[in-house]
Amino acid sequence: MTQLHIDAQRLWADLMALAEHTEPNTPGWTRRFPSVAYQQGRQWLRAQMEAEGLVTRLDAVGNLFGRREGRADLLPIHAGSHTDTVMGGGRFDGALGTLGALEAARAIREAGIQLRHPLVVADYLSEEATDYAIACMGSLAMCTDHFKPAWLERSVNGVTLRQAIIDMGGQPDRLGQPVVKPGAIAASLELHIEQGPVLEARGVKLAAVSGIVGIQRALFELKGKANHAGATPMDLRKDALTAAARMICAIEDIARAHPGTVGTVGKVEVTPNQGNVIAGQVTIMAEMRSLDMAEVDGMWAEFRTLADAACASRGVTLQTFNETRMDAVIPPAWLHALVLDVCRRHEPATLAIPSGAGHDTNYLALVAPAAMIFVPSIDGRSHAPEEYTELADLARGVQALAEAIVAVDQNC
Amino acid sequence: MTQLHIDAQRLWADLMALAEHTEPNTPGWTRRFPSVAYQQGRQWLRAQMEAEGLVTRLDAVGNLFGRREGRADLLPIHAGSHTDTVMGGGRFDGALGTLGALEAARAIREAGIQLRHPLVVADYLSEEATDYAIACMGSLAMCTDHFKPAWLERSVNGVTLRQAIIDMGGQPDRLGQPVVKPGAIAASLELHIEQGPVLEARGVKLAAVSGIVGIQRALFELKGKANHAGATPMDLRKDALTAAARMICAIEDIARAHPGTVGTVGKVEVTPNQGNVIAGQVTIMAEMRSLDMAEVDGMWAEFRTLADAACASRGVTLQTFNETRMDAVIPPAWLHALVLDVCRRHEPATLAIPSGAGHDTNYLALVAPAAMIFVPSIDGRSHAPEEYTELADLARGVQALAEAIVAVDQNC
Repeated sequence: MTQLHIDAQRLWADLMALAEHTEPNTPGWTRRFPSVAYQQGRQWLRAQMEAEGLVTRLDAVGNLFGRREGRADLLPIHAGSHTDTVMGGGRFDGALGTLGALEAARAIREAGIQLRHPLVVADYLSEEATDYAIACMGSLAMCTDHFKPAWLERSVNGVTLRQAIIDMGGQPDRLGQPVVKPGAIAASLELHIEQGPVLEARGVKLAAVSGIVGIQRALFELKGKANHAGATPMDLRKDALTAAARMICAIEDIARAHPGTVGTVGKVEVTPNQGNVIAGQVTIMAEMRSLDMAEVDGMWAEFRTLADAACASRGVTLQTFNETRMDAVIPPAWLHALVLDVCRRHEPATLAIPSGAGHDTNYLALVAPAAMIFVPSIDGRSHAPEEYTELADLARGVQALAEAIVAVDQNC
Repeated sequence: MTQLHIDAQRLWADLMALAEHTEPNTPGWTRRFPSVAYQQGRQWLRAQMEAEGLVTRLDAVGNLFGRREGRADLLPIHAGSHTDTVMGGGRFDGALGTLGALEAARAIREAGIQLRHPLVVADYLSEEATDYAIACMGSLAMCTDHFKPAWLERSVNGVTLRQAIIDMGGQPDRLGQPVVKPGAIAASLELHIEQGPVLEARGVKLAAVSGIVGIQRALFELKGKANHAGATPMDLRKDALTAAARMICAIEDIARAHPGTVGTVGKVEVTPNQGNVIAGQVTIMAEMRSLDMAEVDGMWAEFRTLADAACASRGVTLQTFNETRMDAVIPPAWLHALVLDVCRRHEPATLAIPSGAGHDTNYLALVAPAAMIFVPSIDGRSHAPEEYTELADLARGVQALAEAIVAVDQNC
């Protein structure tokens, strides 16, 4: 195939230029929906897209697209991610996927390649969770009918979601039905930092993501009885914290017994939370993730059985709130094989590993064949200022993305 | 022996009259050192002592004593407890011990009994923990040399401890050495509500306390690594919370394996405490209590070994802070037998159970033969407005206390 040349310095300059748009008086790098910094970062991005000759537009929710036309009878190939961050985030989560897609578009043009399909460089709106409590807002509103018009009345710091979307350039009153329908996109590709330690730990530079794990999650409220820690014998206690500890251990034991899965309790609230008082109430947030939803369901059932027993034997009542189940997302076999093949040109040891985190690809996959490529995260860190990936690794990921775009263009 | 008659209605009237002295705008009943409500409650108490013909005085720290003289060559018998409460406390914790001793003094006089020993009805200062961070302040300063003059400079809400003790009628500049020396008191008796569920659960009305448990306690800080809960495989985690959960389970397992002991984690702090982030840091407050200090030491060593293993196997570091060890307090055999004998006159099933909570008796025991009597606590509750004991049970406890005073008077 024609040689594609990724300009690593240009990629780095773009990443650093976007990073300059950060909310004042916040730690690390912060571009949250709908801040001025986020708006200005996207204005800068839109100018870069247009400088590359892409035709830009915003859809109803405010997703930003830069499009190069192809044959009128072929569906577009989407490549992109997001440019918002968490509070105190880094410079690569999301930004790499969108700016990498822009660099891939440049490299394809500079190599003299005319794609058959239209190419869309995408910047999906507000992927990170905000106080409006809608993660992946842009891709969700674009690809599903989950977006409820009533959400537009939610208000944060006196700004309704309606006004916030207008501020970002969207047209909120057109929302409420999917912006695109299944079959309107030829394929979707998302390059992302791993946000985990696996690639670094194994000394491997690329991963063709084997899928995005499904998640089973719930908030558990354990009610026992607060009592004096000295005066209450062990057999007369209703200790909500020892019951919760058994649940935390069970999650770990079960996930360890199922390779490739994870299970976590990260949040615990204890009442009254005093050293000499038996805990009367504990809430924990527990979750399990796997590519195999049947496996998650089985693990979750085993966990629920152990939790019920741990609570019942201690006279503790157990209530479940906000139980949610997100399906796993598996790329079509042909697209995964294509991405794996492209990645192996540049990293023979390329891994096929799942993404443990959710991404815009979760929603793109509902309307199009969708796949992801990972590059290593130093120390597995993300959502933090320390988030970092070596430039050579970033460029290798963009190289694979560009070649995957070309390969998809030739194969569908 | 001469018949002693306890006037239950008079006892109840005293308890309710003291309860009327409560800090405004606080929940339940609240008389904390050095509030006006606490001062006024003690002024009322002093008047009741004097109405009974007792000679009242305050010592250097502010302990209030009402004394009836006996033979000049015999040491006084002390009976009493405290009249301060926690924030939002009840009407019986402490108050029963002091007002019960006053009622006992009345009953002894009314029965025509002239004790050989002087009798001192005691109201020890500030037994409950306050923001000055000195529990059992009155009995501690009276019986030990632990009270440091530097503590007098501690300030809460702009009031130094020096000024607070002056407000309560003490003479703080005389503090810094024990007020009494070992051998200055014939015996000390303290009647108290159980503050636990054992008497109620067993349907027994009185306990001759077999001792006050010793306590081993420490704050443990576990440092792992905060990471993405989806993207970090189980074998690459450093999860401080699963390690802490193993420690919480270990405490429970060890205490259950040693009948008569208790072990508790009541306080847990998790960082960053987010549902989808592996806990990077956890602190827990852990404690074990037993009448047998050698048993506590062995249990604690076993716990430390398990904790070290749980942390090491997860790549979590473990640091220990504020490790404290309070010795158990065991009454002299003759005094315990005397109290048990008196109690069995009124409750044949009288239990000999340990006190899991600390009391002024912890310090009185350092200078005198000291014992305690418990009456039931409904539902095991104390330090709460719901704290309650039936009047018949309160009166039975005072009856036993009065008869124990007479028995001690005849036996030593």
